[in-house]
Amino acid sequence: MTAPSENTPANAPAPGNSPLAKTMDNIVALARRRAFIWQSSEIYGGINGFWDYGPMGAALKRNLKDAWRKDIILCPGNGPDGKQLDVVEVDCTIIMNPKVWIASGHAAGFNDPMVDCKETKQRYRADQLWVFEGQFSKQDEAGNLPTFCMVAVGSSQEEAQVAFEAKLAKLSKRFGTPEGFKSRNFMELSAAERDLAWGPDATKAGTLTEPRQFNLMFETYVGAMQSDDSKAWLRPETAQGIFTQFWNVCDTSRVKVPFGIAQIGKAFRNEVTPRNFTFRSREFEQMEIEFFITHPDALKPGELTPKDWYEFWYKTRYQWWQDVGLAGENLQLRHHDKDELSHYAKEGAGVCDVEYRFPFTSPGFGELEGIAHRADFDLKAHATACGKGDKMRYFDQARNTRYFPHVIEPSAGADRGTLALLCEAFTPDPSRPSGVYMKFKPRMAPIKAGIFPLVNKDGMPEVAEKLHKELRGKYAIEFDEKQTIGKRYARMDEVGTPYCFTIDGDTLSTQTVTVRERDTLAQERISLDNVSAFLAEKIGE
Amino acid sequence: MTAPSENTPANAPAPGNSPLAKTMDNIVALARRRAFIWQSSEIYGGINGFWDYGPMGAALKRNLKDAWRKDIILCPGNGPDGKQLDVVEVDCTIIMNPKVWIASGHAAGFNDPMVDCKETKQRYRADQLWVFEGQFSKQDEAGNLPTFCMVAVGSSQEEAQVAFEAKLAKLSKRFGTPEGFKSRNFMELSAAERDLAWGPDATKAGTLTEPRQFNLMFETYVGAMQSDDSKAWLRPETAQGIFTQFWNVCDTSRVKVPFGIAQIGKAFRNEVTPRNFTFRSREFEQMEIEFFITHPDALKPGELTPKDWYEFWYKTRYQWWQDVGLAGENLQLRHHDKDELSHYAKEGAGVCDVEYRFPFTSPGFGELEGIAHRADFDLKAHATACGKGDKMRYFDQARNTRYFPHVIEPSAGADRGTLALLCEAFTPDPSRPSGVYMKFKPRMAPIKAGIFPLVNKDGMPEVAEKLHKELRGKYAIEFDEKQTIGKRYARMDEVGTPYCFTIDGDTLSTQTVTVRERDTLAQERISLDNVSAFLAEKIGE
Repeated sequence: MTAPSENTPANAPAPGNSPLAKTMDNIVALARRRAFIWQSSEIYGGINGFWDYGPMGAALKRNLKDAWRKDIILCPGNGPDGKQLDVVEVDCTIIMNPKVWIASGHAAGFNDPMVDCKETKQRYRADQLWVFEGQFSKQDEAGNLPTFCMVAVGSSQEEAQVAFEAKLAKLSKRFGTPEGFKSRNFMELSAAERDLAWGPDATKAGTLTEPRQFNLMFETYVGAMQSDDSKAWLRPETAQGIFTQFWNVCDTSRVKVPFGIAQIGKAFRNEVTPRNFTFRSREFEQMEIEFFITHPDALKPGELTPKDWYEFWYKTRYQWWQDVGLAGENLQLRHHDKDELSHYAKEGAGVCDVEYRFPFTSPGFGELEGIAHRADFDLKAHATACGKGDKMRYFDQARNTRYFPHVIEPSAGADRGTLALLCEAFTPDPSRPSGVYMKFKPRMAPIKAGIFPLVNKDGMPEVAEKLHKELRGKYAIEFDEKQTIGKRYARMDEVGTPYCFTIDGDTLSTQTVTVRERDTLAQERISLDNVSAFLAEKIGE
Repeated sequence: MTAPSENTPANAPAPGNSPLAKTMDNIVALARRRAFIWQSSEIYGGINGFWDYGPMGAALKRNLKDAWRKDIILCPGNGPDGKQLDVVEVDCTIIMNPKVWIASGHAAGFNDPMVDCKETKQRYRADQLWVFEGQFSKQDEAGNLPTFCMVAVGSSQEEAQVAFEAKLAKLSKRFGTPEGFKSRNFMELSAAERDLAWGPDATKAGTLTEPRQFNLMFETYVGAMQSDDSKAWLRPETAQGIFTQFWNVCDTSRVKVPFGIAQIGKAFRNEVTPRNFTFRSREFEQMEIEFFITHPDALKPGELTPKDWYEFWYKTRYQWWQDVGLAGENLQLRHHDKDELSHYAKEGAGVCDVEYRFPFTSPGFGELEGIAHRADFDLKAHATACGKGDKMRYFDQARNTRYFPHVIEPSAGADRGTLALLCEAFTPDPSRPSGVYMKFKPRMAPIKAGIFPLVNKDGMPEVAEKLHKELRGKYAIEFDEKQTIGKRYARMDEVGTPYCFTIDGDTLSTQTVTVRERDTLAQERISLDNVSAFLAEKIGE
């Protein structure tokens, strides 16, 4: 039996310009209303760049991490040579010996050039300041057309221009509107030109400093004394934990190149301008793999090269994001141009990002995961920095030679992935009471099934409770006996529960329940005995 | 068929004083050798108070956390009234708005009194300094018996006395040995007495300062400026994330008192003297529940009181630690004396710890989990601090009244729990090639089963590979085809794998495999088709 939801209100809003269009505002509002994501410390006004997960968000994010762990560590597929991949997991600390970050280059190089405004005390990322230059159309008292050199903020030139034009409009009465202007990034200005630049919130020109380096690592002190000796950083990436323990893994874990070490964990970056909800936050969680392969100098002809492995990994990871539910047309694989590449990557097989089309105004496509061939940069850097150098080369028994393995690094963001799942799942549907439903893949859904006694009598609650107890050991199950069945469906739609089982008046006589399918709204009766098998097949983890 | 392990060396060491006695040294060595736990940043000499988990340790700790999550959140049991418990999960940030820690009392009160040595620049926890006073037995030049007032370090008076007596021994030639001495804690000294005290590593008396407060929270700065306005702390406990989001949970999650909010996550304490392996580290992971119950003023006669809930929770949690594999005789429930209690707990139903007997020299029994009745202290403190006060009281619909719920907090340490599992599992057995095996409960074991083709030919690897692929989606499975079967068993014994399946010459004709049981060493043949069901039954998650 197929029936539409019974509670469709006649006045459900239309999609498109309605309040339920698929916009970031609506997604953020649903995330808040349905216990996915809240501001950290919200009762104190929050803290910029930090986000908490409510019960639904915590479950969604955990499902994503568990899927990654299962598909990477427990059941990895085969490599390009058809052999099963070998990946082990580590769990390293957030605070590490500071020498790690000196060796990795983060202490010296992990910087954003910043610009201060001497007047307003604001600080800006230099690459996000855009200078607009031109000539006004009304003459001043001396009969000249005054020039302007105005600075506006934006993560893109286009975004800054919007701010610039708003400012211009305020000045037009007095100075008129320029017919044309040119723009460039603040970084390109000479010292003399900077003196003419009028800062975003300043009342006069010449208040912006030259760009200065600002390290993105959070600093702290370990131990009782606050001194240079006790300074430490919160890790800005989980990768370096993996690299520093590479040798311990090799010594204790019966692994042989090629193999991977994976880690899931928190990392911190003191972003100057956190933005776009959880996309660019200051505290975030990574899912990183460092996959160690034979150094190209040790390869025999015909063996898998770093390029082969690099291509294998970006294809595998691109596919994985589709498998967890992101549609192909909202994903793109963007290969970096040579001039975007870090020092260690210039000579490598390449760097690319799996990007998802977020409904942000800007930048639209955003990185979910970066895949990079890091060559032997990291292992070599640590071997050198800890003073043992070539003695720490890996011994390749099969080839009877020593080398620092090359590395392919697929590095994914768990929060960004969770946000992409939320955006992808958000499906406006004016025919439903909720006006929207979350179309998560069953494997990702925070709740796998709802169990509803139709009414609270005639033995229905007892049967429902029994079914609940049977299933909840295997799946996250919602038991709901409150309000109308339509309202219960609506709640489940908004958190993306794929299946709801209703125990009704016929259940006791026929030993069947109604299963309602979230996406199609189809309802059919299945045997009570069959519910567990039905879920196992549909969720298919 | 029952057969002992085939590779028992004749010269296996005896337990007791042998290298394989159950001592912390041997446990730490095995943890290192078998990829359970390593020093963080080990190649750089480590960093005091920080520990990384290798592949086996990461799996063990995850199994413990997963069990907690399953038993607390997915399948909680029934409360003292027989009704099913309701617990939801949140995942909050490590860095929160600093007002959280001012309201919670951590900014002002989370301190250890510290003592500096002006000569050596060492810093000590004042409560770990012990003063030993007495009179030597040999006269000095003036014919007097010189007095002494020597300070030694120890987490207990007994520990400090060992250090003191070693120092005394060195002085005995010149001054003789005192016949008696008295000791007290450094905190009890007056300023005049402190001037006579001779610091642990000082060359003269009077170098120790008065005890001063030292906050255990790690400090950092959020944003581009380092100023008092941007100062933030790394959370010293996960609990406050739960309290600050209590209202969001209530607004969005259909929960009603009594219910719990649970969280697993990292926390940080800048311990002055990290010690006892991972027991007291500076970065650690907590598993905390805040269970919200009706304010006692709103209770009707005969309803469950905070005392009922407190007793329920400590019994439940004490039982849980036994269920995951800690033997009853190594666990104790220690009720705090009134004078140990924090300010908010003095009026409450009680505070107690589940303690495990670690093989440390000192203190022996150590806390795994604390269970406390925190009354309404935290919710009230946050409601007051964020300025809304009584407006933030919870509305109890059934009672038609408003109140701040009371809280029972079971707060467990994931790292301490993992360490307890390691200590408990460590079982010396000179009859085995490894000399020791790790007797984890199957549910906790990092690897659930080993699959071994007896030899690498005659179709055995193919059958083994097929079995491996069938099982690894459900369980963590080790496939091992290297070296003798005895060595493979030994490796599995050392990481505590409960079952090993060997595919041998008979497998192809009889479709059976040998299963070897870790604890009994019993071996029996079971049907190849039956392996999955065998594991499901034995592991019984």
